Amino acid sequence: MQKPPITKYRPFSVIDLPDRQWPSRSIDKAPIWCSVDLRDGNQALAIPMNVEEKVELFKTLVSIGFKEIEVGFPSASDTEFAFLRRLVSDNLIPDDVTIQVLVQCREHLIRRTFESLEGVKRAIVHIYNSTNPLQRRVVFGASKEEIRQIAIEGAKLVKELVPTLPDTEIVLQYSPESFSDTELEFSLECCEAVCDVWEPTPDRKMILNLPNTVELMMPNVHADQIEWFCRNISRRDSVIISLHTHNDRGTGVASTELGLLAGADRVEGTLFGNGERTGNLDIVVVALNMYTQGLHPQLDFSNLNDIREVYERVTKMDVHPRSPYGGDLVFTAFSGSHQDAIKKGFVQMPDDDAGALWQVPYMTIDPKDLGRNYRAIIRINSQSGKGGVAYIMEKEYGFNLPKEMHKELGKVVNAEADRTGDEITPEGVFECFKNEYIRVREPLDVLEYNFERIDKNTVEGCATVTHNGKEETIKGTGNGPIAAFVDSVASLGYSDFELLSYSEHSLAKGARSEAVSYIELKAPSGATCFGAGIDTNISMASIRGVVSALNRLVNA
Amino acid sequence: MQKPPITKYRPFSVIDLPDRQWPSRSIDKAPIWCSVDLRDGNQALAIPMNVEEKVELFKTLVSIGFKEIEVGFPSASDTEFAFLRRLVSDNLIPDDVTIQVLVQCREHLIRRTFESLEGVKRAIVHIYNSTNPLQRRVVFGASKEEIRQIAIEGAKLVKELVPTLPDTEIVLQYSPESFSDTELEFSLECCEAVCDVWEPTPDRKMILNLPNTVELMMPNVHADQIEWFCRNISRRDSVIISLHTHNDRGTGVASTELGLLAGADRVEGTLFGNGERTGNLDIVVVALNMYTQGLHPQLDFSNLNDIREVYERVTKMDVHPRSPYGGDLVFTAFSGSHQDAIKKGFVQMPDDDAGALWQVPYMTIDPKDLGRNYRAIIRINSQSGKGGVAYIMEKEYGFNLPKEMHKELGKVVNAEADRTGDEITPEGVFECFKNEYIRVREPLDVLEYNFERIDKNTVEGCATVTHNGKEETIKGTGNGPIAAFVDSVASLGYSDFELLSYSEHSLAKGARSEAVSYIELKAPSGATCFGAGIDTNISMASIRGVVSALNRLVNA
Repeated sequence: MQKPPITKYRPFSVIDLPDRQWPSRSIDKAPIWCSVDLRDGNQALAIPMNVEEKVELFKTLVSIGFKEIEVGFPSASDTEFAFLRRLVSDNLIPDDVTIQVLVQCREHLIRRTFESLEGVKRAIVHIYNSTNPLQRRVVFGASKEEIRQIAIEGAKLVKELVPTLPDTEIVLQYSPESFSDTELEFSLECCEAVCDVWEPTPDRKMILNLPNTVELMMPNVHADQIEWFCRNISRRDSVIISLHTHNDRGTGVASTELGLLAGADRVEGTLFGNGERTGNLDIVVVALNMYTQGLHPQLDFSNLNDIREVYERVTKMDVHPRSPYGGDLVFTAFSGSHQDAIKKGFVQMPDDDAGALWQVPYMTIDPKDLGRNYRAIIRINSQSGKGGVAYIMEKEYGFNLPKEMHKELGKVVNAEADRTGDEITPEGVFECFKNEYIRVREPLDVLEYNFERIDKNTVEGCATVTHNGKEETIKGTGNGPIAAFVDSVASLGYSDFELLSYSEHSLAKGARSEAVSYIELKAPSGATCFGAGIDTNISMASIRGVVSALNRLVNA
Repeated sequence: MQKPPITKYRPFSVIDLPDRQWPSRSIDKAPIWCSVDLRDGNQALAIPMNVEEKVELFKTLVSIGFKEIEVGFPSASDTEFAFLRRLVSDNLIPDDVTIQVLVQCREHLIRRTFESLEGVKRAIVHIYNSTNPLQRRVVFGASKEEIRQIAIEGAKLVKELVPTLPDTEIVLQYSPESFSDTELEFSLECCEAVCDVWEPTPDRKMILNLPNTVELMMPNVHADQIEWFCRNISRRDSVIISLHTHNDRGTGVASTELGLLAGADRVEGTLFGNGERTGNLDIVVVALNMYTQGLHPQLDFSNLNDIREVYERVTKMDVHPRSPYGGDLVFTAFSGSHQDAIKKGFVQMPDDDAGALWQVPYMTIDPKDLGRNYRAIIRINSQSGKGGVAYIMEKEYGFNLPKEMHKELGKVVNAEADRTGDEITPEGVFECFKNEYIRVREPLDVLEYNFERIDKNTVEGCATVTHNGKEETIKGTGNGPIAAFVDSVASLGYSDFELLSYSEHSLAKGARSEAVSYIELKAPSGATCFGAGIDTNISMASIRGVVSALNRLVNA
């Protein structure tokens, strides 16, 4: 990096637009979406898609609901020409989907493009030329007038060729490529010149696409450019203003959103932001951002995992784990306080109202809306808290641990995570629970327990137990079967233990299912702890819970 | 996804701020940066960093130039407590670096935090509590007054504990956590209450951090919130306003940038946007965005690859190939027109002025500024053009092919890429070149060539060649040695070949280096093509070029 003062880079010019309106607006309708996945699949991948892969991606784009899909640059590549012919010959373009073809303003390429369109019902012919000062000077060595003329000649040729495809409705799209660093007045001049050739009307609109081909400026400056252009273009009611943002400075989503506030009607982009360098706009993100604000984007991402699977397979690119909405870690919380808040949020959501306002802390969207699994939401490592562990016990295994027990099990699981230095799976959490509460049968285990009610307030219990490996029969009384059992263990030397709390629930529906009990005992020393017991017999489950708590107190 | 009408989500409230100033401002100075990598390294990774890894990352952050580094949540985790003690015991905190410790507003945690700070020269104690309506209701079941009181009690306790560390300068930072979806007036009220306790002055400022903990709103709304807060806080000259954005809707960078326009002084974030869910703000991106606008961020990313290597190793997370600045594909162009423009841009950059204004199309920054290799810029597949191939031949191998030859070699390489369906490496491009131009020795090969100047305009040449495997001696005359050789091959049946162009250059510096010639021949049929010849003898190199062109014409 150059040390200050920096001579190598200059600030981007700001737009003089003190009465800009966009900062006070909100997005209140979905734009026209155009997918450019099939162009950029070819232009930005080390291994371009083959025709079969393109067909699969095209079908996926149609199923999501795209009504405009750029199918590539058929004049520049045999694969893309063949792909478009395949779409036509196999009748793969639905009646309500318009395909778009990209072509530079060069005669032989435009003619070849029209050949590729034979038999297409409706097509957007997207012509472009580079307009910014740097490319005018370095790449083309051409004056403004010459550059403008390239656009005019391109538009004239398209107009001239329209009658050669009498069964195809042709829509013209023009891009002053590198709009964003072209002088605004000159972009406008080129667009006006193309409009003069094409003569769009409110019933027969043309598309003016204003690419942020290389993202060089802050998103608010991009919005100023778009608002300036929308205000100054002369046939505003006859043109569709289209955005095509990139992500070189990591603000592609914002530039599109602010560009929509500034008056744009249409958005070009790709799934998961594929595209050259840092990628095109990620349409998944902009569309789902709208959805989380209560505005349906008119695209369907209900099966985001499936869409991602196709995308990753055909492009051979990965979706980053932290990519919004689609990434593996989007719905994952490792931190204890986050887990606790999420768990509480889930608990207060009504079970019976799928349309209830979504209010779960730290989650902007219900993962179910994207067909994503709840399972990944809470993951456990040494930084996780009791809330996460309790959540997993409940969601994965159906154990509703008493609140006071969360901390106890949380400590056990954290110690295990600290010991292994790794994440603990839900299965691992359950193993910790079983090792700690269920599997310890020393010094005491219970083999059989019977009780009899003597009077309204007294129960007599009789248990067969093993104590330090030796079978014994013990008896006791109490106001219920548990109390009677607690009383009976005094004969083994465990006197003055006190039952502090008890709860129990079945583990699944149906008569034969098991029940689990949670028992909190207090030792004569004042120490307290929980035990848990599982059995198909609910009485036996509670006795096992007492034994578990007792063993833990004795072994502590 | 819910079908319209959507009841599950609501639009985010807009801020009534019609006289907002931020959209007309530019960023004109670097903010105070605070790295929170070491907090989020623990809170958001499946496998948290161990102490050794934390130490390595801390040293990396110091070397980048961070002057404020959050070292974690020492009261919540033994690892983080041990890590901070290690920094102190090993004297790893430079005098100009302030460490920051995070802690909830809870008494035992704050006390434990102070224990962790023993021996630290200057520390920011960062206290926070959740303030938004959802968490107040669902997580805490607390009133506004109770929530505000939590903040006040936290601040009071910190103030009370300051004298226990007489050798440590304590700076207070307060975050109304979830500022972004807390009622603005209530966030302000909590912050004012904390300021009333702490009593900051312009000489002894405190930090008010306004987290966009879960990114729920457009970046312009975030900027409105920040501007509103900056205008309304009563001790503006005594507080540092800090941003802490996340990336749930993919606009974290934009929210930070617009937040700086709105008046914030300080930015919290992480390298490559690590952090819970979709991550924290990516500081690399915001800092380098400033740099490309000619503003030095006061952070040094001159060795971005090395920083990335440490990051990936200790966090076990990857930087996505399309991540701005740091990703593998950022400086890569596969598309022919992009490659051509980039090549032309490089050519016009002065070699001798490292501070010359950077003007290369499609590249926002000179990769050299980040210590990144030029090699990856242009990569070749079936979509690539002649410009890319020529660029590789020149940059990687030092062959300056004549412009007219680019197209010819481009076709050869594209055919190979189409055949393999894969990317072609620079080595693969060179192999194509050698197979096509250098290795073909049939039907003609030259073994020896001597010539003699007869008069000012005439040279006599004599060559020993193999023709269809048979050794022969041939003679000819011309105005120079090449013309004499072309004349001599007439005796083998190759008459009326015409030399159209010739160029030659050495391949490396020094007397013993090889030279390469590029020869364009025209056959009697009118067909033209290039040949290339390499030899340590410059005459022999040119003769080999003729032979190469002739063989290619004959074999075509």
